[in-house]
Amino acid sequence: MNVLVLGAGQLARMMALATKPLNITIRAYDVGSKTVVDPLALDNSYGDLNDGIAFADVITAEFEHIDHDTLAICEASGKLKPSAQAIKTGGDRRLEKALLEAAGVANAPHVIIADKADFDRAIETLSLPIIFKSALEGYDGKGQWRLKDMSQANAIWDDMANFIAEANTSVAQGIVAEQMIPFDREVSMVGARDAKGNTFAYPITENHHTNGVLSVSIATNEHEALQQQAALAFEKVADALDYVGVLAIEFFHVGDKLLVNEIAPRVHNSGHWTQQGADCSQFENHIRAVCDLPLGSSELVRPTAMVNVLGEDNLPQEIFTIPSLKMHWYGKTKRAGRKMGHINVSGSDKQVLLERLNQLADILPAEAFSDIQQYVRSLG
Amino acid sequence: MNVLVLGAGQLARMMALATKPLNITIRAYDVGSKTVVDPLALDNSYGDLNDGIAFADVITAEFEHIDHDTLAICEASGKLKPSAQAIKTGGDRRLEKALLEAAGVANAPHVIIADKADFDRAIETLSLPIIFKSALEGYDGKGQWRLKDMSQANAIWDDMANFIAEANTSVAQGIVAEQMIPFDREVSMVGARDAKGNTFAYPITENHHTNGVLSVSIATNEHEALQQQAALAFEKVADALDYVGVLAIEFFHVGDKLLVNEIAPRVHNSGHWTQQGADCSQFENHIRAVCDLPLGSSELVRPTAMVNVLGEDNLPQEIFTIPSLKMHWYGKTKRAGRKMGHINVSGSDKQVLLERLNQLADILPAEAFSDIQQYVRSLG
Repeated sequence: MNVLVLGAGQLARMMALATKPLNITIRAYDVGSKTVVDPLALDNSYGDLNDGIAFADVITAEFEHIDHDTLAICEASGKLKPSAQAIKTGGDRRLEKALLEAAGVANAPHVIIADKADFDRAIETLSLPIIFKSALEGYDGKGQWRLKDMSQANAIWDDMANFIAEANTSVAQGIVAEQMIPFDREVSMVGARDAKGNTFAYPITENHHTNGVLSVSIATNEHEALQQQAALAFEKVADALDYVGVLAIEFFHVGDKLLVNEIAPRVHNSGHWTQQGADCSQFENHIRAVCDLPLGSSELVRPTAMVNVLGEDNLPQEIFTIPSLKMHWYGKTKRAGRKMGHINVSGSDKQVLLERLNQLADILPAEAFSDIQQYVRSLG
Repeated sequence: MNVLVLGAGQLARMMALATKPLNITIRAYDVGSKTVVDPLALDNSYGDLNDGIAFADVITAEFEHIDHDTLAICEASGKLKPSAQAIKTGGDRRLEKALLEAAGVANAPHVIIADKADFDRAIETLSLPIIFKSALEGYDGKGQWRLKDMSQANAIWDDMANFIAEANTSVAQGIVAEQMIPFDREVSMVGARDAKGNTFAYPITENHHTNGVLSVSIATNEHEALQQQAALAFEKVADALDYVGVLAIEFFHVGDKLLVNEIAPRVHNSGHWTQQGADCSQFENHIRAVCDLPLGSSELVRPTAMVNVLGEDNLPQEIFTIPSLKMHWYGKTKRAGRKMGHINVSGSDKQVLLERLNQLADILPAEAFSDIQQYVRSLG
């Protein structure tokens, strides 16, 4: 079985590693260079998109910000899973919000903005503070504004109007205004759905961010009520998209409720722990789903945590003395803040896991990992 | 870190899969074609042995039957781990027996045979039945004789003398005569030793063979007394070889004692379960050892079994419905009896494992797997 993945980053690489033992050959389409590569070697080319489509029995994606022409060409081949519509929905906050409303899944109050009238309506409808996010992918931190005080409104609108006008995107750029929700924490869920509609949801993870980037995810089985809410939301969203593959949902945990923050139509950083804490990882389950193989169990085997390695390409060898620790480097060139790899650690129970996480925090260099160290130590 | 593996089969492939996430690049030297290849792709060449040695920080091996010139060239580079002597010892039953005697490790009574006088001495010293095995690798089932009755002795000697004379080996062929031991079962142990002399022994496995080829290995934690004996033998053998890497030892279990049957200076088929039943697989631990990284835990995480797939390249997709089942195909061309892949299955306890094994036995096609089915069903 041959699979072409749209996108040639670490997610395609980990899909390839997970499914090489199934005799599934994965090639990746690098949307930047417009060439097909081996995601495990990267140093050779297997032609262009058409060559990749001809090679593939199945086409899938590792990210949602793929230009619509490429998606259309892939969908026309009849091999694309999940659908172009599902991928587009993950890449456009307007479609995402429409989907959540249609599926009846709780999310933050919001207003879609295309012009000044919409902007004014957002301010009338929502209470401050409001967060404005570009509908399509922002870049370099651009495309987000926070309105805390009405005196900022005009300046924000000017900047936003400019941003919309200057957008060089294949569909019109827009803005989604959202009521800012004071949440207790952020959790997320990855799950898989097959073509018959069977769903396998993994345990939710509790996530910690450093400078706005996910840095730690912890999966345990201790959040039963939240797990049920999240699994229901997962089913509603996946069914509404007639989704095939792994889908991730990020939630705000507010009181005893979960509100969807955003969805990602792909394997997700907060699901990397499944490589070690579940029988079948999100990577294998995604490929099983799109290749029409039976899905694997998503049950928790052991409490497991994932720690991202951001902007570092070398760690003390001493980390390997921690039992159950697995290092996952992505083979990428070092760049400040870049996701270079992640570490998974498991424990027979949560206490053992936390001991090992603290052991890890003590070994990681303080300069680069101070926020993660602080977070881990706060867990006890 | 770059590693060259002597041998380009499934063991090199699984080392590469296990350590790609450590940013370790593995190339494999195919001793047949005398070319260096990527063990995960195989379709490209990276030159000859000298190119491979120049590429490598470390050289290791996936099998012991490597010609001595190649070993000498690799050892001269200062990069070979384990040593050429350790690899040769695993490939020559005479050296193996000498090692076991020197290390004081129990094994079957035996006599080394180079000529007729040795043969006669073997018959005098050992009681019938006697098994005679070629010292260097046999091929196509040749190189083994069983003497059950003295009337067979002359014919066996004639054949054996012929075999020795015709051997086209770089060192002289010889024979090891062994007392045939009626054993209760065969068990084996894989373990790792680092350059500082630290050893990590995995739990022993109980092995079942089909037509003389390993077909099932089961690892549990229920053999405490045997585990201690095996771990002691492992330490003695590994220390005597000043071994670096993963080493396997096969034992006959006779009464309450273990007798060493043979050693393999490499990762071993009976250790494939460690991919799933231990925190750090034998493949990762072998590479950690030769790359001078701290060794990973060899403790059992869950009872786990490995079932070999011999001579088949296609199995019912239904196997994927069994929780915890992992399929490991080797990407090889189908040939009768060939090791094509293996299946790992785990359970939270032995009972759950046996239920899953029986579920698997029911799904596997009866024609190709009848012996395995019978064995699994006999376990309860």
